Amino acid sequence: MKALVYEGVGQKAWKEKDRPAIEQTTDAIVRVTYTTICGTDLHILKGDVPAVTPGRTLGHEGIGVIKEVGGAVSGLAVGDQVLISCITSCGHCDYCKQGMYAHCRDGGWILGHKIDGTQAEVVRIPHAANSLYRLPPGLEPAAALMLSDILPTGHEIGALNGEVSLGDTVAIVGSGPIGLAALLTARFYSPGRIIMVDPDENRLAVARQLGATDTVSTDPVETVMSLTDGEGVDVAMEAVGIPETFDTCQRILRPGGRLANIGVHGRSVELRLEELWIKNVTVRTGLVNTNTIPVLMRFLETGGIDAESLITHRFALDEIEKAYEVFSRAASEKAIKMLLTA
Amino acid sequence: MKALVYEGVGQKAWKEKDRPAIEQTTDAIVRVTYTTICGTDLHILKGDVPAVTPGRTLGHEGIGVIKEVGGAVSGLAVGDQVLISCITSCGHCDYCKQGMYAHCRDGGWILGHKIDGTQAEVVRIPHAANSLYRLPPGLEPAAALMLSDILPTGHEIGALNGEVSLGDTVAIVGSGPIGLAALLTARFYSPGRIIMVDPDENRLAVARQLGATDTVSTDPVETVMSLTDGEGVDVAMEAVGIPETFDTCQRILRPGGRLANIGVHGRSVELRLEELWIKNVTVRTGLVNTNTIPVLMRFLETGGIDAESLITHRFALDEIEKAYEVFSRAASEKAIKMLLTA
Repeated sequence: MKALVYEGVGQKAWKEKDRPAIEQTTDAIVRVTYTTICGTDLHILKGDVPAVTPGRTLGHEGIGVIKEVGGAVSGLAVGDQVLISCITSCGHCDYCKQGMYAHCRDGGWILGHKIDGTQAEVVRIPHAANSLYRLPPGLEPAAALMLSDILPTGHEIGALNGEVSLGDTVAIVGSGPIGLAALLTARFYSPGRIIMVDPDENRLAVARQLGATDTVSTDPVETVMSLTDGEGVDVAMEAVGIPETFDTCQRILRPGGRLANIGVHGRSVELRLEELWIKNVTVRTGLVNTNTIPVLMRFLETGGIDAESLITHRFALDEIEKAYEVFSRAASEKAIKMLLTA
Repeated sequence: MKALVYEGVGQKAWKEKDRPAIEQTTDAIVRVTYTTICGTDLHILKGDVPAVTPGRTLGHEGIGVIKEVGGAVSGLAVGDQVLISCITSCGHCDYCKQGMYAHCRDGGWILGHKIDGTQAEVVRIPHAANSLYRLPPGLEPAAALMLSDILPTGHEIGALNGEVSLGDTVAIVGSGPIGLAALLTARFYSPGRIIMVDPDENRLAVARQLGATDTVSTDPVETVMSLTDGEGVDVAMEAVGIPETFDTCQRILRPGGRLANIGVHGRSVELRLEELWIKNVTVRTGLVNTNTIPVLMRFLETGGIDAESLITHRFALDEIEKAYEVFSRAASEKAIKMLLTA
């Protein structure tokens, strides 16, 4: 079979690789029918995630058809069309029992990281019973694919961690795929305003189409404070992953505000505790648990949000190297998510 | 009447001052019967709180007897023995309606800060109906005085912000008055372990008497990690207010952990977001709202905690300058809270 293999910093290849086989009785083997590329994959290629070693198949998002299941897998059968969660979880350890699948003692984010991932013709999924979700028959796979990572991440680490509530003023700093997923899912909780912050006007135009009430491209702190009559926002979401955008978030929070950090950070940041200690603020971080996949899936089934609109480019799976090229110039290509179809 | 007056950095005097009078119909005039000194008062004397200007009477904790009420004060009468909340709140503004009395549009922490405080024979309390609490007849005033600030602060900004839960491992960094109040109130929620961290062995001995299960005086990060088998704690409370103790707290948090910052900080801190982004942690800050005073008062009435044990020194009110001297050498004097009685 073929797979997109990481071959060291800056290097990757779509190449022949051994087909995966059942290793544990809790595994399933899935033929990938749809996958996509995440910003994290670009970070890996830059060498930012040293746990990824040469030879690793990338990818942690996908939809596929089950080809084989281990003897201990319940609730799934050969032939089932399934969504692959970006988080693998046993469902039984102490973290899993608290719903913190991201910190499963025998899982977490391992696909395309510590084990071979989904940018391949076939993938092995450990702990299949807890990590795969049967797709309802009517659900459009291109929309469902957004449930592997970005919709639950936007929902859990953005909207839920930020405690978005009725009438709130929400600012989302970063209008890339994750920021837009946070926007779509924040709307579930009926905030009064969603202010999208990004230097790229194209991305802000997409945000307006998806429901942003205000967009800000320059002087983010001053502009957001002015838009809110100097009061600041109830919720600030950091959806970039650099100190500057974190700083914007902490400076626009009103007393009682919540800062939901969604971005992946490679450096520490300065926390302005000399101002924040008295402001009754909450700062939350997190890797997605994906435990809201089932509820989001039900919501997609009823057409509640247009998840498919996040897909801007479509390729065949064996064109994945070309898709990476386009995605690496996401801003100029007006790219959000790529759909790769096998 | 006499009052303890701030006269500029490092200077204060117990001196004659005009007796306060009703200024607004929502005011009450209270004859102070008990008061105490807070670490914040020492910060003010060092010049750390520039909003306090020379001539200001210090103090934000107290018990007294109502001498006069304005025409719009309901539920209180001349002669009532009352607890003075360190937070003054109108009860009507948008922040008050969310229970965020600390950010009342016409109040917050103003006593001994922006208006004259409680270290005086008589004090004016604005928004009396929402800022004074009638004392139940049987309640020992020395215990009740701990409800003005430190018990609600420990409870709301420590135990509640840290979401202390059944069986949790809690570390409290700083075993001064606020750390000990956090310890006493964290116990309400039945954590499994409370690890107290402080370089001062005397203060750790007090912590053990009040229910700490473990105490740590050196190498806090390494020791706490070792005590928890390398897992870290569910809740870390910062009860000092310097970057080093904040850093200890962020480094001992387990995945899913909560960092409750109680300390008053004068400087920014480094937030290790490159490690924390993936750990699903929560960092909360806050000035106490004191909206748990009523429930804590009921608890004290039934003898649930020994709040009086926090009082280590007793003076007459007119000996307050001597009390300040002792309190400024708190560690060597084994001082926690001073009781000043008029």
